[in-house]
Amino acid sequence: MFGIWGHEKAAEITYYGLHALQHRGQEGAGIVVSDGETLKLHRDLGLVNDVFKRTSFSELAGHAAIGHVRYTTQEDRGIDSVQPLLFRSQTNSMALAEVGNIMNSHKLRGELEDEGSILQTQSDTELLAHLMKRNGKDVTQESIIEALQQFTGAYAYLILQEDKMHVALDPRGIRPLSIGKLGNAYIVASETCAIDLVGGTFEREVLPGELITISDKAIESTRFTLREQRKVCAMEYVYLSRPDSDLNHVNVHASRKKMGKELAKEAPIEADVVTGVPDSSISAAIGYAEQSGLPYEMGIIKNRYVGRTFIQPSQTLREQGVKLKLAPVRGIVEGKRIVMIDDSIVRGTTSKRIVRMLKEAGAKEVHVRIASPAIENPCFYGIDMSTKKELIAANHSIKEIGDIIEADSVAFLSAEGLEQAIIKDKTIHQGICNACMTGDYPVVDNEQTNRSYMKS
Amino acid sequence: MFGIWGHEKAAEITYYGLHALQHRGQEGAGIVVSDGETLKLHRDLGLVNDVFKRTSFSELAGHAAIGHVRYTTQEDRGIDSVQPLLFRSQTNSMALAEVGNIMNSHKLRGELEDEGSILQTQSDTELLAHLMKRNGKDVTQESIIEALQQFTGAYAYLILQEDKMHVALDPRGIRPLSIGKLGNAYIVASETCAIDLVGGTFEREVLPGELITISDKAIESTRFTLREQRKVCAMEYVYLSRPDSDLNHVNVHASRKKMGKELAKEAPIEADVVTGVPDSSISAAIGYAEQSGLPYEMGIIKNRYVGRTFIQPSQTLREQGVKLKLAPVRGIVEGKRIVMIDDSIVRGTTSKRIVRMLKEAGAKEVHVRIASPAIENPCFYGIDMSTKKELIAANHSIKEIGDIIEADSVAFLSAEGLEQAIIKDKTIHQGICNACMTGDYPVVDNEQTNRSYMKS
Amino acid sequence: MFGIWGHEKAAEITYYGLHALQHRGQEGAGIVVSDGETLKLHRDLGLVNDVFKRTSFSELAGHAAIGHVRYTTQEDRGIDSVQPLLFRSQTNSMALAEVGNIMNSHKLRGELEDEGSILQTQSDTELLAHLMKRNGKDVTQESIIEALQQFTGAYAYLILQEDKMHVALDPRGIRPLSIGKLGNAYIVASETCAIDLVGGTFEREVLPGELITISDKAIESTRFTLREQRKVCAMEYVYLSRPDSDLNHVNVHASRKKMGKELAKEAPIEADVVTGVPDSSISAAIGYAEQSGLPYEMGIIKNRYVGRTFIQPSQTLREQGVKLKLAPVRGIVEGKRIVMIDDSIVRGTTSKRIVRMLKEAGAKEVHVRIASPAIENPCFYGIDMSTKKELIAANHSIKEIGDIIEADSVAFLSAEGLEQAIIKDKTIHQGICNACMTGDYPVVDNEQTNRSYMKS
Amino acid sequence: MFGIWGHEKAAEITYYGLHALQHRGQEGAGIVVSDGETLKLHRDLGLVNDVFKRTSFSELAGHAAIGHVRYTTQEDRGIDSVQPLLFRSQTNSMALAEVGNIMNSHKLRGELEDEGSILQTQSDTELLAHLMKRNGKDVTQESIIEALQQFTGAYAYLILQEDKMHVALDPRGIRPLSIGKLGNAYIVASETCAIDLVGGTFEREVLPGELITISDKAIESTRFTLREQRKVCAMEYVYLSRPDSDLNHVNVHASRKKMGKELAKEAPIEADVVTGVPDSSISAAIGYAEQSGLPYEMGIIKNRYVGRTFIQPSQTLREQGVKLKLAPVRGIVEGKRIVMIDDSIVRGTTSKRIVRMLKEAGAKEVHVRIASPAIENPCFYGIDMSTKKELIAANHSIKEIGDIIEADSVAFLSAEGLEQAIIKDKTIHQGICNACMTGDYPVVDNEQTNRSYMKS
Repeated sequence: MFGIWGHEKAAEITYYGLHALQHRGQEGAGIVVSDGETLKLHRDLGLVNDVFKRTSFSELAGHAAIGHVRYTTQEDRGIDSVQPLLFRSQTNSMALAEVGNIMNSHKLRGELEDEGSILQTQSDTELLAHLMKRNGKDVTQESIIEALQQFTGAYAYLILQEDKMHVALDPRGIRPLSIGKLGNAYIVASETCAIDLVGGTFEREVLPGELITISDKAIESTRFTLREQRKVCAMEYVYLSRPDSDLNHVNVHASRKKMGKELAKEAPIEADVVTGVPDSSISAAIGYAEQSGLPYEMGIIKNRYVGRTFIQPSQTLREQGVKLKLAPVRGIVEGKRIVMIDDSIVRGTTSKRIVRMLKEAGAKEVHVRIASPAIENPCFYGIDMSTKKELIAANHSIKEIGDIIEADSVAFLSAEGLEQAIIKDKTIHQGICNACMTGDYPVVDNEQTNRSYMKS
Repeated sequence: MFGIWGHEKAAEITYYGLHALQHRGQEGAGIVVSDGETLKLHRDLGLVNDVFKRTSFSELAGHAAIGHVRYTTQEDRGIDSVQPLLFRSQTNSMALAEVGNIMNSHKLRGELEDEGSILQTQSDTELLAHLMKRNGKDVTQESIIEALQQFTGAYAYLILQEDKMHVALDPRGIRPLSIGKLGNAYIVASETCAIDLVGGTFEREVLPGELITISDKAIESTRFTLREQRKVCAMEYVYLSRPDSDLNHVNVHASRKKMGKELAKEAPIEADVVTGVPDSSISAAIGYAEQSGLPYEMGIIKNRYVGRTFIQPSQTLREQGVKLKLAPVRGIVEGKRIVMIDDSIVRGTTSKRIVRMLKEAGAKEVHVRIASPAIENPCFYGIDMSTKKELIAANHSIKEIGDIIEADSVAFLSAEGLEQAIIKDKTIHQGICNACMTGDYPVVDNEQTNRSYMKS
Repeated sequence: MFGIWGHEKAAEITYYGLHALQHRGQEGAGIVVSDGETLKLHRDLGLVNDVFKRTSFSELAGHAAIGHVRYTTQEDRGIDSVQPLLFRSQTNSMALAEVGNIMNSHKLRGELEDEGSILQTQSDTELLAHLMKRNGKDVTQESIIEALQQFTGAYAYLILQEDKMHVALDPRGIRPLSIGKLGNAYIVASETCAIDLVGGTFEREVLPGELITISDKAIESTRFTLREQRKVCAMEYVYLSRPDSDLNHVNVHASRKKMGKELAKEAPIEADVVTGVPDSSISAAIGYAEQSGLPYEMGIIKNRYVGRTFIQPSQTLREQGVKLKLAPVRGIVEGKRIVMIDDSIVRGTTSKRIVRMLKEAGAKEVHVRIASPAIENPCFYGIDMSTKKELIAANHSIKEIGDIIEADSVAFLSAEGLEQAIIKDKTIHQGICNACMTGDYPVVDNEQTNRSYMKS
Repeated sequence: MFGIWGHEKAAEITYYGLHALQHRGQEGAGIVVSDGETLKLHRDLGLVNDVFKRTSFSELAGHAAIGHVRYTTQEDRGIDSVQPLLFRSQTNSMALAEVGNIMNSHKLRGELEDEGSILQTQSDTELLAHLMKRNGKDVTQESIIEALQQFTGAYAYLILQEDKMHVALDPRGIRPLSIGKLGNAYIVASETCAIDLVGGTFEREVLPGELITISDKAIESTRFTLREQRKVCAMEYVYLSRPDSDLNHVNVHASRKKMGKELAKEAPIEADVVTGVPDSSISAAIGYAEQSGLPYEMGIIKNRYVGRTFIQPSQTLREQGVKLKLAPVRGIVEGKRIVMIDDSIVRGTTSKRIVRMLKEAGAKEVHVRIASPAIENPCFYGIDMSTKKELIAANHSIKEIGDIIEADSVAFLSAEGLEQAIIKDKTIHQGICNACMTGDYPVVDNEQTNRSYMKS
């Protein structure tokens, strides 16, 4: 999610900003631009490259824009769900983009439909639009806040009107969202790497429960919740964000390298080389190597050109050993005792495949070290993980996991170790959401008391 | 370049093999398959993914296939130059694929055209076809050898006929070419990573000046030159080949890491962190870090999703700081003294851009260390480098280079250091071609004595 | 517009039905299918061929479907406006398709938006959906009728729910709509040619002001207006419908041939040959020839392959005489006195171009005979004609028109002649809407008395 | 086939010219342009529209061009066979386009291949290129004539060099080819309709056995055969050419109308209406109607929008009556005795389908009248007809044909009637090739006496 206010090439800047965020969603992309008079939308399924490859930015002229990259979830319904969504009425228009998940959306949709509203998509984004317009209200800071206060969940919203842009973050700040500047223009981005890529300067993070409204006249901030406490999603550090981003003042690569170092302290092992599963585990692997004194080697390689249109090998060929995405480097692993660092284990099938691959390439031993705690609980805040039934760590002991994935040994980083690696300074970093690891959910959907969590 | 003989899914295996070789050529790709009766071709401009995305491999049925990925050179003329080339006559057909460069091709083409031949492309591949068929000869081992003996240059050829496949390598073995097995099938590939990816086993390298002919009946080897000596292209180790490939029994990643270690010994510097330019310099950077005791950090990041259809930012936006392919990681480099490892410098413009980028991100000092000797001479053997006039090291001292690229210091690996890093065992590794660094060309095009180099 | 209920290949039949109706709209096409449980939509911009060329009908399985071809109007907003529109709620879904024009839509939209509704398109189709659901009502025959009774204009609607299909026609029956059968399945189509093409049998026309509801259990008919009188759009006969269709029991080709015959009686001329402007004027030209005794000749030819992606010739080339869509047949027209039959004249620019073209090809005289009365008034019922300011006949006498289009003489068919040609039997054919010719509008949008026209 | 010399927008004019000729070939299209220095080619599979839809004519700048539309034959091998073919050598280039068929091509290819030539396609076009360059000759009028004199068959060639354009027609002039002017530029086109469409003026037909060479300096004509006699292909008049073209000074529509009139004289029948199979039989049907006094009616209609990507109906749907390309007009044919005019019958399957369709639509009687003689022999001159085994008239009596196609009566035009309809003036029209009807072949491939026919 990326937005900019006050730059004459707003759509083009947003295009580049979305590139930096491409890893956050590869299903679709879109940009809405405002020239002060009207809003214009271009969106499609596919990567940012594909969506805009025939676009002339002269047709998307304007000084403000918001853009979005779409992450797959099961409720997708083709291009209609690609954001931003644009809503027009006879008097004005607005565009919305969102990341996160609203836990009580089903109930809210039902209420709206009972009143005669027609919702075209399953998205929480459209839901917010209807809540804001309920009973024919105008879209104002008040109607936005009134709508947001009905939500339970984790979210970050960008709302573009002809003459202003609103930015909103949930009361726990679970999803990251930052403000930057590019000359006199304001930038909003899910990750700081997008601010960097377009040449901007980081200003500050959006606060939990904050609504910021930017116009040509002013930039206003409102807090719409009494007791907020930031709990940034730990998985953003573990694998979701780009290593060059800073989340809550902590560099992601640096935190990963520290996770590797902590892991080396907690779970050392006698071995010949350390290797990481590309790309997200490389930082942790280098940290593990540095701490342990073992050499880091490129024992596994990723094939960069396996794209979306790739023809998958048939079962027969897979059995004969065709390896597409990841391949072992025989010259490195043959005859060696390997410490294989991965960022996390969800169902365990990928880990098993990699361990087996390394052994077939001649590795003498494979010791799996996971640079985060075991995932035992589902996420309700927007990350599409497996159900509890499928989570290997929810159903098996560490010993059993080792047997299942055929590793010579397995160890996970502790929750303390993870917190240690992420939180440098308790005064600026209030904490992380590690509910998927610990079951300690910072936001709960209580049908009776939808908004109570904000008062806890 | 990839070929397989004796597998019922020959085209499909070749498709996967070409993926592993995609880094060697991104302009176009093609496969010719033989079912024993006829040859069928599919080729197009674009990445392997794109070229075959609507291909049904049932239409490319056959037990033998050769495939090619096309590398850009100035003589390209669209799809007609995408290999393999397929030639049919009333009695039989053949397909050819090639890598390398024939230095005396202009003269040979002229002779053929004077005799009435019509050549459709500028490629050396078609030239070989005409030389083999000259005067109505059949395509046999003899006519292939007779044709190859007219060539001066570096080359590797695959020739597919309905009932056999020929493999040829030039007398210096400058381009890499390996033989593998997949069950009973024979594989030929430019790099061993392609043999690995399809699940095959490495057998041996093709020898310098060797012609191998594979059919259902036999695999025959002929040496068509008296005194051969292998001189593998050093740039294959430095940046061209994939890190998981073994060239002449030497793993590429391992050799790069050693280049980094040698470089740390030859050109140490006081600094805070070591970083590498992704992707090809990472191995050397880790080697440098290990040897020097400095921590390796991810100071530069590569944007993975910047594809071929990418819209380039306008001059204005570039000046405002939009950074597309590579970006500095501010959280890592700010306030640090950086050792920036790169694999090579050609014109110096990229190095200058990266140094400047690191400094703008707050680096206190940037010390550039190049993990190969300076390139001062053009390549005549198939690598598309700049002309001598553009090579920064051909026209400037090391001190001047440092000033031009705005680095606090610059150092190159010595030719001895490079050889040290690549050649483990002189008995199996006869030497490398480092002509672009030293000017010592192993093959010379002497108009009067075209074939003399083989007798030297 | 095409619908079918009760056929196991509903979507495929609809695809073929839309082909027969392709001349009614070339901007976009879509199909919604019901399998009794859910509705599925496929739609896109382009011709029916293009929209469905990569569609597997196995993904559109179901026993009921509605389809639509989109006609260009100025309010189009890309693919979002391509019909059918599909609306989902948590409890059920519906799809709508429409032809025609609602005159009081602006007022109705304003009311809905004031109540908080969000309308995504400018279409009258979405407007109907919101009116039906207003205040959270279910979609039933009652809510459909209640919604339709708020409309002033000309319309034909198809509404598909999981378990039934509704068909509605405006109280004047201005737009054509027929019911057919295909085995036990019911078909609804804008023109009978679509029923014929899919192998069905014509049953009857939908009555003015009739709502038909078809389900697996029953087919029910309701009249939602007291005094209806069918007034089929005369332009449907003149040029819009396909010659093989029957409208209100009158074959279109036959009516056109009679228009030509009446015209020959009303406006005879001494000449050598009769020719028609392809395609829609050929029938009238043959009628004129038969009545007058003059030979019919192919004096003008249409280039069939000039498609949507055609590159238009530059001004220079047009001036040099490049003729794309229509061309004179020099061998026929040279030295001849031509009667040139056209179906109608709107702005006069095309007529002028054709007259000039015939003269340049050597025609001695060109006598223009128009097989319908002069168009002097705009259409409010769904045909995209010029504004009154642009209508040549609204601003010029017949004599002046002749001078403007450079014809040797001009004559129009009289309103009586047109009626004569269309209406065979007053007992079954209550009349035509010829408002664009006579100014006698059968439906008027009176802000105060929106529904009064139905009581008149 | 279209060519132009001396117009600054040569490629663009050729593009429009190819549109006029699109009916002659729909498989592929290409244009080669010369700017005096180099030749540039653009070609692809598909209709002219599709092939050039993304072409900027500024990239095809030049004052001379040749273009071609490709007709399907069994020897096609994808895009490589799409013409013009472009051949480059180190010293110069040439492009060739051809229509027709060379009967002794197999023998000539064999000779060339025995001498070492490599031919890339199966086309006679490439064959000519090799014959011209045989033994290293330059391409001159002499080498062209020497090559053409080795050919037996029917052909028309366009050859473009940087500085001249050659036009050649076979000694019997079986394929049509005309010269026109557009300002000072020369045009060559397969049919005069292409000259008309681009705004040019017809000059004259290319003579049988004539080679014309056009350059900036001169236009030269050479006759390369002693006794020539023009025998234009009768099927060009019957169905192949466009009705607005003149072939050998005879308008095609006019000749078809006369065929209909002759047919009415030779084979009258008592009936109610005359109808024609669209599009090619409409002219003959109108002629039959005029001569017989019966009314012409549109009893069969063609669906214009059934394009190349059309999804064919399944067997089940075809049996249920889905009619795609042609449909009966029930309102016209019901209860009537129909004279159904078709231009020709090849295998009889289409005729049977149409007769049955008319009867199912209620026709009382269907009398088939064919406006050309029965086809009993294969064509060796470039028209892709069925083999003798499949030709219905080669294996059945007229009575049997009537039974097979389920007509109430059948009659063919006589060979005399056809000649009567085509040849107005024996002094300018030396005759037609009607070998497929009469077996009287004007050119014979006698292996021993390849060139003897020119002396007959």
